Amino acid sequence: MSKVGIVMGSDSDLKVMGKAADMLEKLGIEYEMTVISAHREPDVFFEYAKSAEEKGFKVIIAGAGMAAHLPGMCAAIFPMPVIGVPMSGKNLEGQDALYSIVQMPPGIPVATVAIDGGMNAAILAARILAVSDAALLERLKEYTKEMKETVQAKDAKLKELGYKEYLNQK
Amino acid sequence: MSKVGIVMGSDSDLKVMGKAADMLEKLGIEYEMTVISAHREPDVFFEYAKSAEEKGFKVIIAGAGMAAHLPGMCAAIFPMPVIGVPMSGKNLEGQDALYSIVQMPPGIPVATVAIDGGMNAAILAARILAVSDAALLERLKEYTKEMKETVQAKDAKLKELGYKEYLNQK
Amino acid sequence: MSKVGIVMGSDSDLKVMGKAADMLEKLGIEYEMTVISAHREPDVFFEYAKSAEEKGFKVIIAGAGMAAHLPGMCAAIFPMPVIGVPMSGKNLEGQDALYSIVQMPPGIPVATVAIDGGMNAAILAARILAVSDAALLERLKEYTKEMKETVQAKDAKLKELGYKEYLNQK
Amino acid sequence: MSKVGIVMGSDSDLKVMGKAADMLEKLGIEYEMTVISAHREPDVFFEYAKSAEEKGFKVIIAGAGMAAHLPGMCAAIFPMPVIGVPMSGKNLEGQDALYSIVQMPPGIPVATVAIDGGMNAAILAARILAVSDAALLERLKEYTKEMKETVQAKDAKLKELGYKEYLNQK
Amino acid sequence: MSKVGIVMGSDSDLKVMGKAADMLEKLGIEYEMTVISAHREPDVFFEYAKSAEEKGFKVIIAGAGMAAHLPGMCAAIFPMPVIGVPMSGKNLEGQDALYSIVQMPPGIPVATVAIDGGMNAAILAARILAVSDAALLERLKEYTKEMKETVQAKDAKLKELGYKEYLNQK
Amino acid sequence: MSKVGIVMGSDSDLKVMGKAADMLEKLGIEYEMTVISAHREPDVFFEYAKSAEEKGFKVIIAGAGMAAHLPGMCAAIFPMPVIGVPMSGKNLEGQDALYSIVQMPPGIPVATVAIDGGMNAAILAARILAVSDAALLERLKEYTKEMKETVQAKDAKLKELGYKEYLNQK
Amino acid sequence: MSKVGIVMGSDSDLKVMGKAADMLEKLGIEYEMTVISAHREPDVFFEYAKSAEEKGFKVIIAGAGMAAHLPGMCAAIFPMPVIGVPMSGKNLEGQDALYSIVQMPPGIPVATVAIDGGMNAAILAARILAVSDAALLERLKEYTKEMKETVQAKDAKLKELGYKEYLNQK
Amino acid sequence: MSKVGIVMGSDSDLKVMGKAADMLEKLGIEYEMTVISAHREPDVFFEYAKSAEEKGFKVIIAGAGMAAHLPGMCAAIFPMPVIGVPMSGKNLEGQDALYSIVQMPPGIPVATVAIDGGMNAAILAARILAVSDAALLERLKEYTKEMKETVQAKDAKLKELGYKEYLNQK
Repeated sequence: MSKVGIVMGSDSDLKVMGKAADMLEKLGIEYEMTVISAHREPDVFFEYAKSAEEKGFKVIIAGAGMAAHLPGMCAAIFPMPVIGVPMSGKNLEGQDALYSIVQMPPGIPVATVAIDGGMNAAILAARILAVSDAALLERLKEYTKEMKETVQAKDAKLKELGYKEYLNQK
Repeated sequence: MSKVGIVMGSDSDLKVMGKAADMLEKLGIEYEMTVISAHREPDVFFEYAKSAEEKGFKVIIAGAGMAAHLPGMCAAIFPMPVIGVPMSGKNLEGQDALYSIVQMPPGIPVATVAIDGGMNAAILAARILAVSDAALLERLKEYTKEMKETVQAKDAKLKELGYKEYLNQK
Repeated sequence: MSKVGIVMGSDSDLKVMGKAADMLEKLGIEYEMTVISAHREPDVFFEYAKSAEEKGFKVIIAGAGMAAHLPGMCAAIFPMPVIGVPMSGKNLEGQDALYSIVQMPPGIPVATVAIDGGMNAAILAARILAVSDAALLERLKEYTKEMKETVQAKDAKLKELGYKEYLNQK
Repeated sequence: MSKVGIVMGSDSDLKVMGKAADMLEKLGIEYEMTVISAHREPDVFFEYAKSAEEKGFKVIIAGAGMAAHLPGMCAAIFPMPVIGVPMSGKNLEGQDALYSIVQMPPGIPVATVAIDGGMNAAILAARILAVSDAALLERLKEYTKEMKETVQAKDAKLKELGYKEYLNQK
Repeated sequence: MSKVGIVMGSDSDLKVMGKAADMLEKLGIEYEMTVISAHREPDVFFEYAKSAEEKGFKVIIAGAGMAAHLPGMCAAIFPMPVIGVPMSGKNLEGQDALYSIVQMPPGIPVATVAIDGGMNAAILAARILAVSDAALLERLKEYTKEMKETVQAKDAKLKELGYKEYLNQK
Repeated sequence: MSKVGIVMGSDSDLKVMGKAADMLEKLGIEYEMTVISAHREPDVFFEYAKSAEEKGFKVIIAGAGMAAHLPGMCAAIFPMPVIGVPMSGKNLEGQDALYSIVQMPPGIPVATVAIDGGMNAAILAARILAVSDAALLERLKEYTKEMKETVQAKDAKLKELGYKEYLNQK
Repeated sequence: MSKVGIVMGSDSDLKVMGKAADMLEKLGIEYEMTVISAHREPDVFFEYAKSAEEKGFKVIIAGAGMAAHLPGMCAAIFPMPVIGVPMSGKNLEGQDALYSIVQMPPGIPVATVAIDGGMNAAILAARILAVSDAALLERLKEYTKEMKETVQAKDAKLKELGYKEYLNQK
Repeated sequence: MSKVGIVMGSDSDLKVMGKAADMLEKLGIEYEMTVISAHREPDVFFEYAKSAEEKGFKVIIAGAGMAAHLPGMCAAIFPMPVIGVPMSGKNLEGQDALYSIVQMPPGIPVATVAIDGGMNAAILAARILAVSDAALLERLKEYTKEMKETVQAKDAKLKELGYKEYLNQK
């Protein structure tokens, strides 16, 4: 049973939201991915948001650009955490979506991550599920160790090659 | 029968939205004023938006602050014009609400007016109704004449008093 | 007789404003398209704006970039709705045009849509005309249904292919 | 045992963070509140963040203003969710803190809420804990119902009094 | 005969534009001050701008706030320099007016000064007139000397009193 | 004798400042073009600014990017008009240069034009010189007529071809 | 002999720059405080900047608001570190001064601190001098310890009183 | 022994930070370059910052993008000057990193340079070291002379070729 719903307002968001899916897969978390527009099919959206709890979702990751209403409207209906991913678009570099997602009024929070931060949305979802899933918490700690080793390897390579050669090899 | 629905996300918007009501009254247009939160009572909101057409609304004026979803969600459901009024709040001076209202995705426009522009929202509603209401169009032209005379009177007073005395009398 | 005037400050706006024309055609609304610069030919502009009502225009869609004065000056003269389309330019990503169009002073509203939102300007014009045109209102509802089906088809395809294959096929 | 750690960079943040505490109390969630500066006492901070898991914290709510590093540094060490509250300050209206908190690099998310959004941080913490706490989930739904009734009561009062009298009584 | 026309969109701009008048008087330059709204009385405005040259104006100083069209529209009609003064307003701190005034399209420049910079607008007008008025150029140099002496006197006082006492006496 | 000094902080500004030179040539105004860095050679700069009046300059056009000090420092020394051209750079789209040029303190104005507005700087210089040069004023009016005719020709072409064909031919 | 020159563009900056002086005194560093306007008295300014090295200054702290040129022009002439303090003003909250100070072109850096960050400018000056002054380095470490103890005392008080009582006593 | 530590949060910062290294080499200053992520390996980072003083570092240059915590966290631990370089990234053009670095709270300054200003960071480090190193101060003055000559050569070339030919040869 999928524990995480990934939802986006348009298939143009798929490249960023695909990174969320990749990371959930890496961490062994089942998810369901859906394209739904709160604006273009409000009744389909409402049905989705209302049935999310009984489908077994524990977290929803919602990505949207411009006047990004999808995350906030999910949070208005779904009672567990909604993570919002502001998408950058043709203009304004995601500033519009960031404000539309993070500045939620008192009572209805959206857990907002960085602009185009699909991967971080998945890690945040994992951290949320890890509150009651010790095995997942271990996998997250393992991933943290990997990140550390990756940076350390880069630093070792930089020290070995010097920055000029390092840049050449990139 | 009310032709204009005025709706706002919170009673803290009432001071700005009251100016919309004042102007509609001045122009002889019936309206109904409602406080509805798309976030805190999404089902009540959906009901409101869905029934708006059959209640006889021709235009909805929707005001909201912060991550202002109310105008956009009205426009997703109600098929005639929705006018959005971005509210300034404690921080960001309405910039957040402006982006959340004006940057609607293709297919679902919101007719956005200035930050805290309640009065202009009413005049825009009147202009929309005046497309098919010649008497209202006349009243709008009359109002335009009034505005002109008001500015001209101020200019005459400035020329008479000089700016120092004019500022003293303000 | 054209019901909608489309006007732009420069032929560099034509790509965005062409989307407004496309949508009006799709919805069966006649329009007239004009290039007029309020700055470079103010007398031509004034003549245009003053004669718009008697030419039968019910709505004007005005697009402009940078210090975008065209929509606001139209609204100062034409008594029915003026829809403003802020254009993005070489710098500032349309932020300058957005402010110049939406922040109109009390008394003279411009119905502002998203930056580069030519298509939405046309849909807003159609919604305005639909207030007194039941057949157009039906066509708008039909268009809304189409949008819904388009999103649903994308979602079905995503569910069928999975997001990796979906992205490959894009 | 406290499940939520509330931490802030300065006691000037206490007014906003107190709202988080109020809401946690209302929802029956134990918390521990601490003033720690990641900048002025980095070793105390590191100790706090490292011991947070074994103290039993499941969520940390971290508030900070200006170049707000506290939430991000917590998220670098504590493996479960960290909620960031950007504080507005003397200048820039919280824009600086918002960017410093939300724009976290890949791998280390902070669940960011609105500027000065202390209350929403607590509700988000509750939603996170409710993933594995059915009783808390019920209390959250109860709270949602309360919010709905509050808005409905305001709407009823507005309809009864009219907006002029409503504004007078405020 | 007035050489400088001072024009503003609203009498709320009078406090800032009064500083322009004060400085012109100090520098011995005649001016005429007018309140005209390009939006609320476009025909009065056009008449003003068209007759400005034959009235003998050599420079126009135009102040406006929000979607400030007045300076740009003056520059579209009047062939000599137009100086624009962006006014700060209730929201956005003059950012909207600054963009609306400075971002003029190729062909029609407005000489923009700082937000609320009424005094500097007058000095700029004087510098423009001083190009062909040697006596005025001398008065401007005299004024520059005064400014220098004022700062030097403050510095001497600071050195004499120390900054704590200086602040006490302010 | 050159009446206009064109000065820029770096030869990377030459593409924009070349448009100023082109327009001055078109309008028959002699100029001298110089690369001077107020930051990298302050003594050379001071000498330039101090000797500008006796060289016969009546107007200085100064272009600079980033923390653009060159226009303001010219205005601190040269007693006649200084026109500032904010340059866009790698980041911030000229916003930094715009603020650094337009927000001059009381007493020392810079006549600021649009970001990358080299051509408009030249037209503004011409308008300033035209205050006391009737022949130049005529040439400026001639140029205004040209601009009008150019826009009218585009409009005629659009009406003839229709916008689809017009876009094809661009 | 003063090692630090504190200079500001206007005596309105004295309240913020006084905090720099207070902190230098606390850390036992001699300074000289001066009001100089790079714009209103460029020759006085040049003299100041040129003689700074021979007066024995090792660091200059320069504060300015709006189009803040003072720090950058100091850095163009004085060969050792210049610390810039952006001042907030009537509009734009110091954003203009921040850009004008921090965005220096390649070759001429200004060490920029926070908006209105007078105290931090002094600490940065002390850190710079401490590179070659072991006793000062000790005093800085002592000050760091003080800061730590202050935060710890606040935390202890918060834990003792609880946040409600703590807020009452503030 | 290296006097300057160059540290960056990611190897994607290497292109900008390499310019810092180039300039230090040019000025004859030894440095050590390291990739460390304060977020992905906080314990490695802490160790680095704590040992920096005993390794002989006198200045740290820290570059980071997005929610750039690295410079501020260095400044919290290392007692001598920390220079921060805000990196531009995929969105927001370095505005996020600039705020995260420059807006440090009282007590812990970071000497911030321009967005992507790697070269200037090195020059600032050299200026800091030159406070107590007369030979380095001479090299800095030599470099200043070089910069001046470079600009003068460009100006001579421009005067010789004219701007059209100059642009052709670029």
